[in-house]
Amino acid sequence: MIKECFKNVRKNCPLVHNITNYVTVNDVANMILACGGSPIMSDDINEVEEITGICGGLNINIGTLNQQTILAMKQAAKKAKQLHKITLLDPVGVGASKLRTNTALELINSIHFDVIKGNASEINALIMGSQKTRGVDACKEDIPTEDQLDFVIIRMKEYAKQTGSIIVMTGEIDLIANENRCYVVRNGEKEMQSITGTGCQLAGLMSAFLIANSDHLMEAALSAVCLMGHAGEQALLNMQPSDGNATYRNRIIDAVYHMTPDELERGARYEIR
Amino acid sequence: MIKECFKNVRKNCPLVHNITNYVTVNDVANMILACGGSPIMSDDINEVEEITGICGGLNINIGTLNQQTILAMKQAAKKAKQLHKITLLDPVGVGASKLRTNTALELINSIHFDVIKGNASEINALIMGSQKTRGVDACKEDIPTEDQLDFVIIRMKEYAKQTGSIIVMTGEIDLIANENRCYVVRNGEKEMQSITGTGCQLAGLMSAFLIANSDHLMEAALSAVCLMGHAGEQALLNMQPSDGNATYRNRIIDAVYHMTPDELERGARYEIR
Amino acid sequence: MIKECFKNVRKNCPLVHNITNYVTVNDVANMILACGGSPIMSDDINEVEEITGICGGLNINIGTLNQQTILAMKQAAKKAKQLHKITLLDPVGVGASKLRTNTALELINSIHFDVIKGNASEINALIMGSQKTRGVDACKEDIPTEDQLDFVIIRMKEYAKQTGSIIVMTGEIDLIANENRCYVVRNGEKEMQSITGTGCQLAGLMSAFLIANSDHLMEAALSAVCLMGHAGEQALLNMQPSDGNATYRNRIIDAVYHMTPDELERGARYEIR
Repeated sequence: MIKECFKNVRKNCPLVHNITNYVTVNDVANMILACGGSPIMSDDINEVEEITGICGGLNINIGTLNQQTILAMKQAAKKAKQLHKITLLDPVGVGASKLRTNTALELINSIHFDVIKGNASEINALIMGSQKTRGVDACKEDIPTEDQLDFVIIRMKEYAKQTGSIIVMTGEIDLIANENRCYVVRNGEKEMQSITGTGCQLAGLMSAFLIANSDHLMEAALSAVCLMGHAGEQALLNMQPSDGNATYRNRIIDAVYHMTPDELERGARYEIR
Repeated sequence: MIKECFKNVRKNCPLVHNITNYVTVNDVANMILACGGSPIMSDDINEVEEITGICGGLNINIGTLNQQTILAMKQAAKKAKQLHKITLLDPVGVGASKLRTNTALELINSIHFDVIKGNASEINALIMGSQKTRGVDACKEDIPTEDQLDFVIIRMKEYAKQTGSIIVMTGEIDLIANENRCYVVRNGEKEMQSITGTGCQLAGLMSAFLIANSDHLMEAALSAVCLMGHAGEQALLNMQPSDGNATYRNRIIDAVYHMTPDELERGARYEIR
Repeated sequence: MIKECFKNVRKNCPLVHNITNYVTVNDVANMILACGGSPIMSDDINEVEEITGICGGLNINIGTLNQQTILAMKQAAKKAKQLHKITLLDPVGVGASKLRTNTALELINSIHFDVIKGNASEINALIMGSQKTRGVDACKEDIPTEDQLDFVIIRMKEYAKQTGSIIVMTGEIDLIANENRCYVVRNGEKEMQSITGTGCQLAGLMSAFLIANSDHLMEAALSAVCLMGHAGEQALLNMQPSDGNATYRNRIIDAVYHMTPDELERGARYEIR
């Protein structure tokens, strides 16, 4: 299934409309190209509806939101649903400010997102109304241990039921839940946390997978998470002793570029709960 | 001539004012530095006239245009012409939205640009009013085949005559036309399409070449196109098996950094039609 | 002392609020992560006070300032001082436009910055009201020679006294002055000038060091300058013949990522005047 999802991306070259932050946007674009998609970035209220209209889906990332782009996000998301396009929300830093929390909640309450993806602190902030978020990186106390996993999964399934969205929580263990089941993914490397924007890149990648596999969204989301993680593993094998986080960033995108559907299928490590 | 054009860039360190998108801006800046120029990015309406004034020319890229930056583009372009500075327009994604099409046409109709540079779909959108643009990447049906080349060149010469601009169409074959002649360039590699922003980088590079060779704009544009393409060829030779599009991006900029005018002269592959 | 300053960064993972330009922002984020800090970028007036509130300090960079972000800078800086947070100003391109000069001076006149950091032209523009700045790169005539060093240091100490800030002037020789003493640093490589944003990266790095060493700001600033320069030296040793400015950019961040406090202590080359 994972193999087929990836093949569909490579075959269909899904066009992804990204309203995203200016910190990691270049890596997001190169990551979408690496997996076989085509990115377009556009955030002015006077064109976002048209851009969403020509794309297969919309990836909203609130990492450097501002008053203008918030309006554009809302308008584009509304249009995307009218046109039955894929919608993904990456609520970067939600909980760190009222503006982020309110924007994320207003979007979620007014628009149905196919996927809501965040780190442990961000997903907790959405579910619990927690305000503990430490900037854009997850707080250690939010990251579930193996013992807490079952409890976290139950809560994610409940939130998935409530929102009708697939909920993706990224971290050392990645979780992908709808109301019925949860994929538990154990791909990836801890060194990926030293790179800015691996989460943003995953959101772009996942949008391409969702668009190209709109009848199998859970499997598409799973495949994207496994691809990002397995690319991180492959990239680490290619690191020279003097390579650090900047080069690792490039090597992960390179690894996605070279990954074959068969390799991904073999490398994916997940279970269903 | 190509050799001299490059030498003039390295000697004069042309200062380029860029009003450009936030996706590829870092690579544009590093590319301008790599070729021997100096970049400045500035897009607020309250300073763009002054910034244009201290620079040798203005590179306008509408990749992530918004209401504020559109006003700044118009004001800066007007000032640039008043001061007889070089002006280049890169109408990224024109045809993908009314906002992009109208902005590009308003700029072209009110300001004389020394160069208008785009991919096949973008140049077609300008010439034909076509709305087929597939985001920011060229549609396959727009890319001219060898058989269509003569027809496309005639149309480009007509558009060059109409606008008074040099028209540059990038792709596997690059075309550089004024009303009298057209350079047909066969440098470059197809893998360059997997990198976001090679077109934006070329626009920055070309602006530096135009500024440093303001008496030979056609040759300056030609030299920049050959440099970008030949750097892509050199960079591909330096690729390791695990290197992908992210690393290729860096290696192309690196190849420009190391290219000598003599190497460029030898590597340039073009004909005149 | 330098060793301890670096250890404190690695131990405390200082959270840095950056209001910065969109050209070099990704490298700034990866550089802050490389040294052991955690970056957050936020520039909307409706959230900057809250974001500053959860961070250890604020790094303001006016590289691509606009009307909205100028308001956000002022509000965030005011809040940062109220909360006794670290404040650093990087007046990129000051002197190149009235908007930049006025914004920098308004910030400096209304808020006490712990550190003001710029290249020779920028610091001169602030001290002398000079308008000679050539874009964002320093003019050759502004860069102090060995003979001029004592005179420049006296002027910097005076400006430090006047503003109550530590004044950092970067270049081939880096100077870090308060009203009483000046560190003269001779780390770094001239090739670093071919990379866009090494100054911006240093400002991010330095903010992390200042936050983690708030009782020893002079030493913290010194340590950050030595780290950036020594990383540039280490990175140059790792360069392959075909590597140019784009790869060098990554290798410097990588070198910071791998640097140990002991190596930094050994590699730091400075004197006190």
